[in-house]
Amino acid sequence: MTVLENGWIKKVSVTPPSLEDNTADADRLERALMAILKTEMVDIALPVLVNLPELLRKFDFNLRCILFEDHKKWCLAGIAGDDDKIVAGLAVDLGTTTVVLRLIDLSTGRTMAEYSFSNPQISIGPDILTRIHFAESENGLETLNRLIIDGINLAIAELCRSGNISPSGIYLVSVAGNTAMTHLFLGLNPRFLIREPYIPVINRPGCLNARELRINANQSAKVFVFPNTGSYFGGDLIAGILYSGLNRSDKTAILVDVGTNAEVVLGNKNWLVACAGAAGPALEGGVTRMGMMAGPGVIDRVSVDSETGLFSIHTIEGLPPRGICGSGIIDLAAALFLSGRIDIRGKFISDSCGTRLIEKDGLKHFIVISAEESPERFDLTISQADLDSLIRSKAAMYTILETIASYVGISLSELSTFYVAGTFGSLINPRSAITIGMMPDLPEGTYKSIGNSSLEGAAMILKDCRLMDEIDAIRNSITYVELNVNQDFMNRFSAARFVPHTNFSFFPSVNPARPFSAQEKD
Amino acid sequence: MTVLENGWIKKVSVTPPSLEDNTADADRLERALMAILKTEMVDIALPVLVNLPELLRKFDFNLRCILFEDHKKWCLAGIAGDDDKIVAGLAVDLGTTTVVLRLIDLSTGRTMAEYSFSNPQISIGPDILTRIHFAESENGLETLNRLIIDGINLAIAELCRSGNISPSGIYLVSVAGNTAMTHLFLGLNPRFLIREPYIPVINRPGCLNARELRINANQSAKVFVFPNTGSYFGGDLIAGILYSGLNRSDKTAILVDVGTNAEVVLGNKNWLVACAGAAGPALEGGVTRMGMMAGPGVIDRVSVDSETGLFSIHTIEGLPPRGICGSGIIDLAAALFLSGRIDIRGKFISDSCGTRLIEKDGLKHFIVISAEESPERFDLTISQADLDSLIRSKAAMYTILETIASYVGISLSELSTFYVAGTFGSLINPRSAITIGMMPDLPEGTYKSIGNSSLEGAAMILKDCRLMDEIDAIRNSITYVELNVNQDFMNRFSAARFVPHTNFSFFPSVNPARPFSAQEKD
Repeated sequence: MTVLENGWIKKVSVTPPSLEDNTADADRLERALMAILKTEMVDIALPVLVNLPELLRKFDFNLRCILFEDHKKWCLAGIAGDDDKIVAGLAVDLGTTTVVLRLIDLSTGRTMAEYSFSNPQISIGPDILTRIHFAESENGLETLNRLIIDGINLAIAELCRSGNISPSGIYLVSVAGNTAMTHLFLGLNPRFLIREPYIPVINRPGCLNARELRINANQSAKVFVFPNTGSYFGGDLIAGILYSGLNRSDKTAILVDVGTNAEVVLGNKNWLVACAGAAGPALEGGVTRMGMMAGPGVIDRVSVDSETGLFSIHTIEGLPPRGICGSGIIDLAAALFLSGRIDIRGKFISDSCGTRLIEKDGLKHFIVISAEESPERFDLTISQADLDSLIRSKAAMYTILETIASYVGISLSELSTFYVAGTFGSLINPRSAITIGMMPDLPEGTYKSIGNSSLEGAAMILKDCRLMDEIDAIRNSITYVELNVNQDFMNRFSAARFVPHTNFSFFPSVNPARPFSAQEKD
Repeated sequence: MTVLENGWIKKVSVTPPSLEDNTADADRLERALMAILKTEMVDIALPVLVNLPELLRKFDFNLRCILFEDHKKWCLAGIAGDDDKIVAGLAVDLGTTTVVLRLIDLSTGRTMAEYSFSNPQISIGPDILTRIHFAESENGLETLNRLIIDGINLAIAELCRSGNISPSGIYLVSVAGNTAMTHLFLGLNPRFLIREPYIPVINRPGCLNARELRINANQSAKVFVFPNTGSYFGGDLIAGILYSGLNRSDKTAILVDVGTNAEVVLGNKNWLVACAGAAGPALEGGVTRMGMMAGPGVIDRVSVDSETGLFSIHTIEGLPPRGICGSGIIDLAAALFLSGRIDIRGKFISDSCGTRLIEKDGLKHFIVISAEESPERFDLTISQADLDSLIRSKAAMYTILETIASYVGISLSELSTFYVAGTFGSLINPRSAITIGMMPDLPEGTYKSIGNSSLEGAAMILKDCRLMDEIDAIRNSITYVELNVNQDFMNRFSAARFVPHTNFSFFPSVNPARPFSAQEKD
């Protein structure tokens, strides 16, 4: 069968042995591989050798070899006969909250199946900090490690069922996660990640054996774990950069991964600067009282008719509304602003809101869906506190973007592309984000939602053996910028706490329908 | 604590981390090791990293690192604090019949304990051929592999008890065995070792993880398996050469390992030639009716008074005689010859033997110990068939020695040293072996019994990190000579079937007391 030209599977013809050429099978195979790979050594692990003699002879000394490379060192992850049997790879996005796996046919690059599950470590703690502290307790690290590995193995079983293969058909696994999740996945102590001077156990785990990690795959399968740069910049982001192509472009672009943290990388093929800030929490489900994870029946899009001021609401899968998620809240805030229902400080304007504004427990609430309109018969509201929290978050995000741009001496308006990554990020409507001043006022075509870039990067590496060097290049060219909350930062933050900003000239495209109605009345 | 200067333990001081130098602990350690070892890469396996952060900080960034090197590639087999805790290594002679292990303190080179056990695979078959065939049956290979690994793990438990350490204190293991035993130890299919063109799965297993081999040692312990040269020349012999120093000498010497096979290496620091022949079986216990393994009460030495013709017998541990082992038979044959009781064809001379010669089942038997002399009240005899078998064996041995010497164009008399290795070999009295023409007539000081050279070689490599290169050099400089049983060989063999030889001038030191008495009468 044919194989991807630059894939990890190589077709190999080994010279059959004779009395004149009676070296060992392993030597014979290594010799053939060295010639194909133009390298001086190929590491052949013991488990591969178990089936080598039989396979060589059964397939007339023609094999498919599944290789992997790490730091210029080639290793053999498995061998298969020259037949049609599927040789699979597994890409893993090791999220703090959600883990996503994709099964890939390594011969063609085709996605065979995809599966996601809630990180079972959530039972210990939803945030990574709680888990790191738990890891210090008796058997804590082992428990966390077991939870994630068992979860992955269950997912592998599901994927293999869908893909109609056995786990032993998986030869390569690539894993992208943040530094702490990577440590927990590897069973390494994360204790010093969160203590000055913030030292990981390892930056480049490289290529490991699935067996030693207890991943249920072929007994000789290799696991590539994306490298991290220190405690804060994880392999998930390096995978994301790889997928976005930020590092291959002449023009300067930005990648923003909006998850629990907002992680930002700015750069081009010559340089990359990165920073991270806790901008996200207010945006993701569970932080605002009403916000929730995206799911069926959750409001993910809100728009407003500029003439009538009426809201138009979209729920996931078109089901009756039962809540609102982060992207919905951003839309809603934009709609409230555009319809003159909140002022530039993000405060409700009583006159414009009319009867939709109620007071509960001394706090103003705006009724998005009234009990009469709701099938579940309760008011779906957004409170002033929710809005304040959103404004702080969006201000933090914009400040981070401004700060990193100014760090490298460019203006945000110069960005050629604005990549938005992350499951949450991919739901954000750039127009709304611009309206509330969360993201810069760039032409809409500049925004590119790239979804789960961590998973996509992890999948890419399984399809193209030339990309390994690129990962190291990305890692080596990143400058991590520690965002100091100094006077400059605070000044920028204060200016960004208005909708869209104190300086309206930064957001020329934002035109509220009835601007400042409330203020005019003041 | 101090460590052996050229041992595998290196004392390492790692630069403590700071906000300015906040790279990962693994990078920090690798950097320090690269400087000490003057190398560009040190492979640090995952299990070592598990304890790295705590150990670094507990011992103020001063560690003992247990390293290993294989094909110029350094790897870290473990880390220990800078304290007195014992770091041990384990040398293993993986014999077909007997497995011997030695526990060594890697800091000092001191032997802590030694242990030997019968290879449990004997339950499947005493000889390696039976086991190879068994390996082809359902689960056969797994069974054989489990037997030897379980046996070794039991022995490790014993050794650790004696040495008062835990198996986790063992960081390095070196294993020397013949090619087939090595394959069974590694769980590799030995099927093609015995089928033309006799292909091993692997020649250089190199450095493996104890964990993947299921050896009960430290979780990051490394196992070095001595390489083999094809199917016939095993790692046990390479270890033996290393121990003998054959490969370091200006003068040409010979190493003969008399076990199930007689394995012969001839050479000096410039070249090595090797061959193997089935000379041994007749010599080892179980082949002659009377021969047995050396053990308490077994006759291991026999001499004869040249005046009286009376035998003097020595048993192991001085216990009443219950049998005779290989070295005893060689002594006995020499004594029979020197006292004129056998002729140069090795046939009993009735006149000289007198009443000691009896006939049983149509076969002549010589009574070594009569029932009256024996505490067990039976005649301990040697038959003409036993003698014939011995003569064939000694002739084969001598022919092999002559053939290999003539292959490189030297005479046996030019040998500077004649190393005799192997448990059985070490018991042979060179004087007797010369007398019967089994070994060449060299000055007695030329013979050096070196005991279990396979175990000694395996132990050496644990004490001196400079020897790894030497192993590869030995392997690469060996020319394996296939001994063709051609006309030349047969002519030599026929000449060697006399005692000591048809050409008496080859054995000037052999002077039978009453030579040719029987022939004179003919």
